[in-house]
Order: sequence, then C-alpha cells, then structure tokens
Amino acid sequence: MDNTLIDPRIIGKHVYGNLYEIPEEIAGDEEYLRNVVVEAAKLANMTLLEVKSWKLGGEKGGVSVIALVLESHIAIHTWINYRYATVDVYTCGEKSDPWRAFNYIVEKLKPKEYTVNYADRTQLLKQ
Amino acid sequence: MDNTLIDPRIIGKHVYGNLYEIPEEIAGDEEYLRNVVVEAAKLANMTLLEVKSWKLGGEKGGVSVIALVLESHIAIHTWINYRYATVDVYTCGEKSDPWRAFNYIVEKLKPKEYTVNYADRTQLLKQ
Repeated sequence: MDNTLIDPRIIGKHVYGNLYEIPEEIAGDEEYLRNVVVEAAKLANMTLLEVKSWKLGGEKGGVSVIALVLESHIAIHTWINYRYATVDVYTCGEKSDPWRAFNYIVEKLKPKEYTVNYADRTQLLKQ
Repeated sequence: MDNTLIDPRIIGKHVYGNLYEIPEEIAGDEEYLRNVVVEAAKLANMTLLEVKSWKLGGEKGGVSVIALVLESHIAIHTWINYRYATVDVYTCGEKSDPWRAFNYIVEKLKPKEYTVNYADRTQLLKQ
C-alpha cells in the first residue's frame, strides 16, 4: 500500500443534531458555550480562526456561538425557554474528527435526548 | 380554521449543498461573496445580525463568509483552485425561506453542477 498517495479532493464532514431538554442555565450561558466550542474545535483537530457569540433576548431568546474553523465551521444555537439547542460541526480534511467535537458538545450541554445526522460535504470527482 | 393558533415550537429549516466548477474569479472574490450572503438573507426574510468573512491563502485557499442571522446562520466556503464551494442556509421561523436564499446563491456562484439537501432542524414535541 502506497501511503504517499494523497487524495486531491476537498474532504468535508458535517455532523449536526438537535438537543432536547438541556438545562436552562447552560442554554443561557454565553461564556460557557463559547468555551465548549473552543474546546470542541481542539478535540476535533480543527484550526480555529475566530469565535463569535451573541446573546439574544425575548421569548425565543438564547445564545448563538459560531466558530470559523479553517475551511469550515462550528455553530451552536440555543433557545433558553425551550431548553433546545441545535449543533453543527462541519470539518475539512482527513485529520479532523467532527464526531469527537459533536460528542463533546453533547456531553457539555447535557440534553436528555438528542438527534444526530451526518452529511458528506466532500467534493465528488467525475470518473 | 383558527388562524390565531401559533405553533409554539422552534421551526428550523436547513438547506445545504455542494457547488461544482464555479468560476475562479467568483470563488476568490471576498466582497462579492459577502454581498451575495447579505442579499440572500434579505430574500429569505432573515434578520441579519452580523457578517464575517475571511480570505485564506495556500493550495487549498479560498473564501469563507459566515452570517449570523437571528437564531440561525448562512455559510459559504469556497476553494479557488478546486472551483468548489459549499453552502449552508439555516433559517428559523415559519416566515423565512431558506430555499429562496439557496437558489439565489447558486445563481450568483454559477456552478456547472450542484447538489442540494434539506435537514429539518425543528424542535419535535412529545405526544
């Protein structure tokens, strides 16, 4: 087997899910959620470029954290009153592991239940 | 029919796709891509909070534009040398239309071919 062969394509992996019945104090804690995203990026072997976060008020208020990672992103959106959150971990490159980041985020957001899906964002080559 | 009934759930709609063989001059034009994202958010009836963009160099260089929209996001990542882009339009609320934004982005990025997928990010309620 020739390990010098390098796949020339852009490899993209996107894990996303919906988290139910997370604790309200976590859903509303912007700093905590930022730290979770930063740590998740490290665990997934992603190159973090910048993290932005916002806390939004109102009945449907919550926190949004978006991290720009090299060629991809992580996003968490929470709704405090609904104890609901959605999570996207989209990574590029063979060395990155979005599942590790996703599982870490779930562990830290403590949902009672969650859904998870996977989307292949890899560039397909014509035969 | 009682039109005063309001669905109490968090409605989330996520359209995403991979765009092939886009023109290199579009893939590398950060300002153009930012404007496309801003216009797409308007067309989809989304509340734009902030737009961030980055131009990355190197063999796998390209442009990333991420918009934080109220409770959701739009992201475009391009790879100039690969003439490749991925697009995410994730909207919240019944009034927003991510398909309109996605189709506008495709129109402006001019791929020869593209894939598109849909993910439901709506909060499910227990029966």
